[in-house]
Amino acid sequence: MTKTQQVRLARRPSGLPGTDTWNVTTEDLPALGEGEILVKIDYISLDPAMRGWLNDVRSYLPPVGLGEVMRSLDIATVVESTHPDFAVGDAVSGTFGVTEYAVSDGKGVTKIDLGVAPGPTWLGALGMPGMTAYFGILEVGKLKAGETVVVSAAAGAVGSVVGQIAKANGATVIGIAGGAEKCRILTEELGFDAAVDYRGEDVLHRLRELAPEGIDIYFDNVGGDILDAALANLRRGARIVLCGAVSAYNDEKLRPGPSRYMSLLVFRASMTGFVVFDYADRYPEAVAAIAGWIAEGKLKSREHIVAGGVAQFGETLNMLFSGGNTGKLVLAL
Amino acid sequence: MTKTQQVRLARRPSGLPGTDTWNVTTEDLPALGEGEILVKIDYISLDPAMRGWLNDVRSYLPPVGLGEVMRSLDIATVVESTHPDFAVGDAVSGTFGVTEYAVSDGKGVTKIDLGVAPGPTWLGALGMPGMTAYFGILEVGKLKAGETVVVSAAAGAVGSVVGQIAKANGATVIGIAGGAEKCRILTEELGFDAAVDYRGEDVLHRLRELAPEGIDIYFDNVGGDILDAALANLRRGARIVLCGAVSAYNDEKLRPGPSRYMSLLVFRASMTGFVVFDYADRYPEAVAAIAGWIAEGKLKSREHIVAGGVAQFGETLNMLFSGGNTGKLVLAL
Repeated sequence: MTKTQQVRLARRPSGLPGTDTWNVTTEDLPALGEGEILVKIDYISLDPAMRGWLNDVRSYLPPVGLGEVMRSLDIATVVESTHPDFAVGDAVSGTFGVTEYAVSDGKGVTKIDLGVAPGPTWLGALGMPGMTAYFGILEVGKLKAGETVVVSAAAGAVGSVVGQIAKANGATVIGIAGGAEKCRILTEELGFDAAVDYRGEDVLHRLRELAPEGIDIYFDNVGGDILDAALANLRRGARIVLCGAVSAYNDEKLRPGPSRYMSLLVFRASMTGFVVFDYADRYPEAVAAIAGWIAEGKLKSREHIVAGGVAQFGETLNMLFSGGNTGKLVLAL
Repeated sequence: MTKTQQVRLARRPSGLPGTDTWNVTTEDLPALGEGEILVKIDYISLDPAMRGWLNDVRSYLPPVGLGEVMRSLDIATVVESTHPDFAVGDAVSGTFGVTEYAVSDGKGVTKIDLGVAPGPTWLGALGMPGMTAYFGILEVGKLKAGETVVVSAAAGAVGSVVGQIAKANGATVIGIAGGAEKCRILTEELGFDAAVDYRGEDVLHRLRELAPEGIDIYFDNVGGDILDAALANLRRGARIVLCGAVSAYNDEKLRPGPSRYMSLLVFRASMTGFVVFDYADRYPEAVAAIAGWIAEGKLKSREHIVAGGVAQFGETLNMLFSGGNTGKLVLAL
């Protein structure tokens, strides 16, 4: 019998999830049947989208049910296998949840090559954030060389990759982030052309100074006032890519939308939402491209790794909403 | 010397334009130079967009200057000509402004065929509203047969043509309008599949009943709560076409934007603004198509004609903002 400690959803939070949101339990896992694997979780991904999964509303994925193990994407090692495709020692990626060990029939589980990049990077630039950045900026945003791209939450898991992919494709890139240190990382370490500190600067006017001819693509990770600031600075034919609205994830009711949305009309612009899962059959293309940019030194993957047990999941998740992380936030067990 | 009564912008209004917005003057026109025409205005177009032209803000057209003759599109008759392309008696369309007579060098003036349709229709289904409807629903909205289309201000100049073009192209069409009589006209006279009375019905829930599988295209002429109601009822891959926001044209400050805009993400949908002038080189294609549908009985042009002098311009314009018109609002001199 393998015992596993895991985190279950105890109650649906209103606002920021508190300690009473989660129930940490220790349970026995069943013995393996035919065609199954037992995995030991090494790294758990923490994503802003997780907050949405806690609400009992219709969305692109069903909510996590009360009492269920919290959904998460993990990097794991196969420790037992009766499955023909997986051997003991294989490194894999899968939606095993917030748990120490899991049994799986292998569906949705992907083998990863730790020779290409270490485990946490497979949750970051080579994982869902990387896929989101790649398809968001290139497919939804239809980036062309020479364009001006603005990305918010630019020091975050998705934003940092968006900006670097845009640079690798010939764009001028402005990142918006909170605090001088994050802004320094953007321009000095990640190659952004400029950075705006939304905590200390007037974003609307700074964008006007930095992009006097207007923004071609605004990649929105935050919503709120920053979305309005971008709307006020579009160039004709601009595209806004809606990736998330982390500023509103913990709100209990709908907030006012972007009051400057009619800029879309003035600038013949569009605002388009997307969900990365729709591109699942093209992930290998994106992984190959991003791995190539990493190998060429054009893209740096940044992970913010917190070491701890699954019981630290709740407090680690909340770092996403206080801006506590730079790059992909990962819980290393 | 030809005397003309005309309407000049006396002061920029805040909110609904009042009588002090306008200055009605009588002035002498200059004698014709070489290559010019003198036209007598027969019909003046009244458009919601006019309200935007009164604000001193950057937009798709410069604002009307203080003291200038109010900009308008007119149908007129050539009464004197030294221009090789125009003869006395020609019916023409042009941006002559709110005036009884005008002198023009012929630039931007188009001859129209009153054998195809009477003058007011050349300001409606065959004029800018028709062009806006045609390119908005077919090019921006990318309408496909079998889709479900919702249009707001459906009894207005643009909306009534949008719905009929969508029907002619195989769509199911739901119109939103204010009052039972407008709704009756939509379904009984213009062939809409259903109508929602926003004054008496809960639009969000009515749309859910009428389009249980969701809306493919929402053609937005009004903004506000009705845009939010549409956002709550999208189908995957939906397109929102932003044509205007008549509900906000008289606001003194920005109103909250659509609070449900994140539905664009959930439904992988887009919201796109456009300005019909961008399609100017394709107007002949649209005029031919719409004239064809009129001839086949598939499209009825509705005009709301107010007879009066240019001095009635101000009060006639305000009918647009109180929902006083059904179909294209025209001032017949």
